Amino acid sequence: MTDEQTPESIIGAMARAARAALPVLAAAPTATKARAINAAAAQIRDRADEILAANAEDMAAGRDKGLTAALLDRLALDAKRVEGLAAGLETVAGLPDPVGEEIRHWTTPNGLAFTRVRVPLGVIGIIYESRPGVTADAAALCLMSGNACLLRGGSEAARSNTVLLDCMAEGLEMAGLPRAAVQMVPAGDRALVGAMLGAHGLIDIIVPRGGKGLVARVQADARVPVLAHLDGINHVYVDAAADPEKAVAIVRNSKLRRTAVCGAMETLVLDRALPEATARAVLGALADGGCELRGDAAARALEPRAVAVQPADYDTEWLDAIASVVTVDGIEGAVAHVQAHSSGHTDSIVTEDGGVAGRFLGAIDSAIVLHNASTQFADGGEFGFGAEIGIATGRLHARGPVALEGLTTYKTLVRGTGQVRP
Amino acid sequence: MTDEQTPESIIGAMARAARAALPVLAAAPTATKARAINAAAAQIRDRADEILAANAEDMAAGRDKGLTAALLDRLALDAKRVEGLAAGLETVAGLPDPVGEEIRHWTTPNGLAFTRVRVPLGVIGIIYESRPGVTADAAALCLMSGNACLLRGGSEAARSNTVLLDCMAEGLEMAGLPRAAVQMVPAGDRALVGAMLGAHGLIDIIVPRGGKGLVARVQADARVPVLAHLDGINHVYVDAAADPEKAVAIVRNSKLRRTAVCGAMETLVLDRALPEATARAVLGALADGGCELRGDAAARALEPRAVAVQPADYDTEWLDAIASVVTVDGIEGAVAHVQAHSSGHTDSIVTEDGGVAGRFLGAIDSAIVLHNASTQFADGGEFGFGAEIGIATGRLHARGPVALEGLTTYKTLVRGTGQVRP
Repeated sequence: MTDEQTPESIIGAMARAARAALPVLAAAPTATKARAINAAAAQIRDRADEILAANAEDMAAGRDKGLTAALLDRLALDAKRVEGLAAGLETVAGLPDPVGEEIRHWTTPNGLAFTRVRVPLGVIGIIYESRPGVTADAAALCLMSGNACLLRGGSEAARSNTVLLDCMAEGLEMAGLPRAAVQMVPAGDRALVGAMLGAHGLIDIIVPRGGKGLVARVQADARVPVLAHLDGINHVYVDAAADPEKAVAIVRNSKLRRTAVCGAMETLVLDRALPEATARAVLGALADGGCELRGDAAARALEPRAVAVQPADYDTEWLDAIASVVTVDGIEGAVAHVQAHSSGHTDSIVTEDGGVAGRFLGAIDSAIVLHNASTQFADGGEFGFGAEIGIATGRLHARGPVALEGLTTYKTLVRGTGQVRP
Repeated sequence: MTDEQTPESIIGAMARAARAALPVLAAAPTATKARAINAAAAQIRDRADEILAANAEDMAAGRDKGLTAALLDRLALDAKRVEGLAAGLETVAGLPDPVGEEIRHWTTPNGLAFTRVRVPLGVIGIIYESRPGVTADAAALCLMSGNACLLRGGSEAARSNTVLLDCMAEGLEMAGLPRAAVQMVPAGDRALVGAMLGAHGLIDIIVPRGGKGLVARVQADARVPVLAHLDGINHVYVDAAADPEKAVAIVRNSKLRRTAVCGAMETLVLDRALPEATARAVLGALADGGCELRGDAAARALEPRAVAVQPADYDTEWLDAIASVVTVDGIEGAVAHVQAHSSGHTDSIVTEDGGVAGRFLGAIDSAIVLHNASTQFADGGEFGFGAEIGIATGRLHARGPVALEGLTTYKTLVRGTGQVRP
């Protein structure tokens, strides 16, 4: 007689196996973790044909199911992408190990010595969509930071993910680490995602990686803390004291380098006192680059290709070649607009006036606030982290691009010589 | 025609008023925040008679309602306790301001300069029971760290809390800070607590301060992140290489200094190789101090006053003069027992063997891990923080005693000279 399996019992058993692996992972030397990840990279290279064959089956099934071209592109692997996965793992294996880092030391007058030291977060649930690359990438980041992970990829990529997971598991085994450190939750049954989101006390944090629909569902339903961002309604404010060339380059890059990334500018904020030539150059550069402009009356007067903005546009993440444009009265007008409409992700000011820049950097409380730089630098790689598991806009724990350090917590060690409390 | 008020609309309106105050609070200089808190302390001293009169009414109503003696003691204020509240506020006003602290600086090869700087968390919900002192204390900690707070005290203390809140509001006004920074949610209607717990996006974090029932309810129902600990199942492991005098002193203090605090020892872990005289001395000291011992066979053989332990006792937080006792085989046995039963709050090892201590400090993943010191040092004041809003045993954000720093998050400022992303 066997117990009936429920989504909760399946996830519970996986999470408990992952938890059982935690002490080994937390104590694993950096070299051992790196060896596992490098071995997984070697497996991916050795088994590239097998990965591509599985991916071809996923793609065929996806075409039969009528997946969109965009989804199929995310799902697709080729020899170059597979090599990119392997190389990405090797990058992670070479990153500094955050576990054991001493964050702070202090002593108290009674002679107690305190040390705050980084430790892994625990069991991390990763919920993603059709990109098979996330399987290797997320697993490596979790492993390098001493965490176990439960991966839940989309069913479209199930065959590709199975082979990639096996490569990770082989790497773990070669390094003498427990296979339970990286597990794949079966695809297809959405109730298993619900069970992950409800696994309070078993899964320590959930990281959704995918579109807004996925993130919104995870945030709405999770009983487990979530590390994510929902929106990137990012602003570039061009101040009266902006350098015209920098303004044009930064606005164009912030909006048009890639329009579908979370760090893209969605609203351009123009100082009413900006020289007309600069304002026209900035707006013209966007319009010339194929960007639809939705502007207020002042913006439309400067750039006839702009159409009328609607109030809701200022709260819209376009993720496309569209920009809202608002005209404001100087830095205080800009601060008021951004405070009212920013999603807390990334905002930038262009100005040569240090005082005005300081006011913007101080008053805007977004995860990332830039001065004279493109919003598209909102990325763990560009921050010098070597990788990222995502960008967080919540206020707890980690904020902005999250890499290895954001996947740790800390404990406090207290060393005494027999002290008791009076 | 007015809209009908619901618990959600009441909490929503309060939280929105608090959010509107956030930019002012975040930008408030240290001296301004200290002035508000010191002025509130002066108000408390000046209005001591009024506070005591209101408290006397609360006490009379509490007696009529048949509150327990323990509850009435928590509710009661006298001249000394009121002075203690005022002095406590002055301590908080003198603490270092965490807001604006630069946590880290770095640059990337393209010349971008990154600064991670502390900012307030936002709107903090404090849910507590009958202690009126929390009103002043929690409000001061939130304010000094630049946060707004919604306070929800127990209905038993409603009259006392009203006067104390007014003292805080007067202090805010004297310093030119918005009154909406510290608000009191009306007592009595439990649906308002539910609305606080569900106020995702409006309240940034909930801190429950009170007994296990309150914390459990908050953790179960909250859609907002919670900073708290549920259990303090804390261990002291006495290793074979323990100094006998330190062992006796640390175990006695850990268990009996105060038995009802979350940092109290609940389980004594004895190394089977411990010299019999030491083991007898440790157990005898507890029994002589009036502590009931629930031990395994080996413990009972050493101390005849011990009774038989039940398996569930090792997962019980006694909060009383009772200790579970387990005998283990050396450090590995101790690590296995503590890993299996600790609630992740505070655990301690007593040994003169540095290697054994290192193994314990490394392997035990509790918020606080001590060597040769009493578990009762688990307290923000004893950590040198000057105050604490609580002790957190979750793995996200802050862990261990939480004071001003734990009530902040950070943002990353990026200063460029016109950089765009290739």
